[in-house]
Amino acid sequence: MSLLVTGTVGIDTVETPQTRVDDVLGGSAFHFALAAGLIHPVRLVAVVGDDFPPAMVRFFEGRSIDTSGLEVRRGSKTFRWHGKYHDDMNQRDSLRTDLNVIAEAPPPIPAHFRDSAYIFLGNTHPAVQRGFIEQFRGTKLIALDTMDLWINTTREELLQTLRLVHGVIMNDGEARQLTDQREIVPAAREILKMGPHFVAVKKGEHGAVLVTNDEIISLPAYPTLKVVDPTGAGDSFAGGMMAYLASVDRIDLAALRTGLAYGVCLASICIEDFSSFALKAATHDDVNQRLATYRRMLTFD
Amino acid sequence: MSLLVTGTVGIDTVETPQTRVDDVLGGSAFHFALAAGLIHPVRLVAVVGDDFPPAMVRFFEGRSIDTSGLEVRRGSKTFRWHGKYHDDMNQRDSLRTDLNVIAEAPPPIPAHFRDSAYIFLGNTHPAVQRGFIEQFRGTKLIALDTMDLWINTTREELLQTLRLVHGVIMNDGEARQLTDQREIVPAAREILKMGPHFVAVKKGEHGAVLVTNDEIISLPAYPTLKVVDPTGAGDSFAGGMMAYLASVDRIDLAALRTGLAYGVCLASICIEDFSSFALKAATHDDVNQRLATYRRMLTFD
Repeated sequence: MSLLVTGTVGIDTVETPQTRVDDVLGGSAFHFALAAGLIHPVRLVAVVGDDFPPAMVRFFEGRSIDTSGLEVRRGSKTFRWHGKYHDDMNQRDSLRTDLNVIAEAPPPIPAHFRDSAYIFLGNTHPAVQRGFIEQFRGTKLIALDTMDLWINTTREELLQTLRLVHGVIMNDGEARQLTDQREIVPAAREILKMGPHFVAVKKGEHGAVLVTNDEIISLPAYPTLKVVDPTGAGDSFAGGMMAYLASVDRIDLAALRTGLAYGVCLASICIEDFSSFALKAATHDDVNQRLATYRRMLTFD
Repeated sequence: MSLLVTGTVGIDTVETPQTRVDDVLGGSAFHFALAAGLIHPVRLVAVVGDDFPPAMVRFFEGRSIDTSGLEVRRGSKTFRWHGKYHDDMNQRDSLRTDLNVIAEAPPPIPAHFRDSAYIFLGNTHPAVQRGFIEQFRGTKLIALDTMDLWINTTREELLQTLRLVHGVIMNDGEARQLTDQREIVPAAREILKMGPHFVAVKKGEHGAVLVTNDEIISLPAYPTLKVVDPTGAGDSFAGGMMAYLASVDRIDLAALRTGLAYGVCLASICIEDFSSFALKAATHDDVNQRLATYRRMLTFD
């Protein structure tokens, strides 16, 4: 079934304790689409400025990513982010964030995208997310991500939007912030009461947990030894999970469980090189192979 | 195959944010034996003082625990520990530790226990652990636990002992301390170079990792909602893992993987009530049921 993502496409500069890359493709929708595209075709809705390098537009070609929803806005500037990771790679500082075109009107959803069945609303102002939701017809699953900024400054708007979605894919810090619960599972259960039918919580090196009203599914991180750059891991996770669900067109518990496993595997590929380099180099077969290894690790007598 | 544990049996007082229990059975060998006994018969080697209540000795009866190695030493006092958990239950303070008989000579290993095949050396002075090792004949697997005290004060002794064992079952903080590695897997790999063939690292709410020269196995914690008292969780983990290995008499990678899963499940039972109450109430069937639920959670398409 059709899969669509809304979110940011931008230009990143990333520093880690080891090295630094300047002016590479980034953004939540970018990482999501790159990961999802390894599993299932994905429609991208995002906006960049007219400074966005044509080479970067060409990057999407041949990757199962439909960019007809990528608006290049005249007279606007592309979103830019500069982050620096701490020694332990689990923490980072945003040295600079230039919202630019992201602070303007959201991109339109092309008419031929409005029948999309599986929708992921990348992190942005919850009223903008709601505006997107209203444009779709016949959705089967809408899931969203958010961030501390919106939890803290637009909580009521966010609660309104949460009532309209089926799923939430967020990280542990956000789940805690949204609920004031310290433990993940109680936090997720409280979020379920806000509307969604499932809450997937990403815990970085500690894996992920999915909570529904009936079940708790906890999976470990894929034990990779090469943690080069965590940027985009969370979006790759969401991309892997949503793409699997769209590919089987199911959202039952068994599908969510497998989707969670895809999410873990895609995130683990993402972090093994800078920026999108590892996802860019990966193939559908690489994903399947990693999933098979992961499944073997979790199989016991 | 025969399974034996050495370690402490003592009397605990435990405070959690919710409540407090006074003067209950505790100690590493106690929790290990209680968990292991749910899966496989276990031989207990420990020493208590003559103040040890007869009712506590009777506690072991009918539990697949052979207490003929439990020495009740005349004129000595039983080991006592008083701990208090912080609000987040992952941290605790030892308010009082009376080593008493633990500071004296170690208990002898009865002659009819010396043919034991699977041995777990609970945390104690590494020279004492070595003294135990020398008394066994025909072992198939010796694993040990240790703690920050011995890592910091008797490091050379510990390194000598590590050269004599096949496995290590320790927690994440200890693995870091022993190696000065911040990440668990690199830490475990360094410990492998010290002698053992496998290192199982317990990570509390984040599950466990087992590292060999060929493989990394990461398992999540069993998602229990009732975390009442973490005391004994690590020892229950070791008891579950070692008892499974002894029960199948195998130490290949598949067996270690299943053993790790048993460890996770026994630890999760342990923490659901105060002290040993949950393990005491559990049956072999409860363990199998929990393992089946855990396996289902980790099974995906």
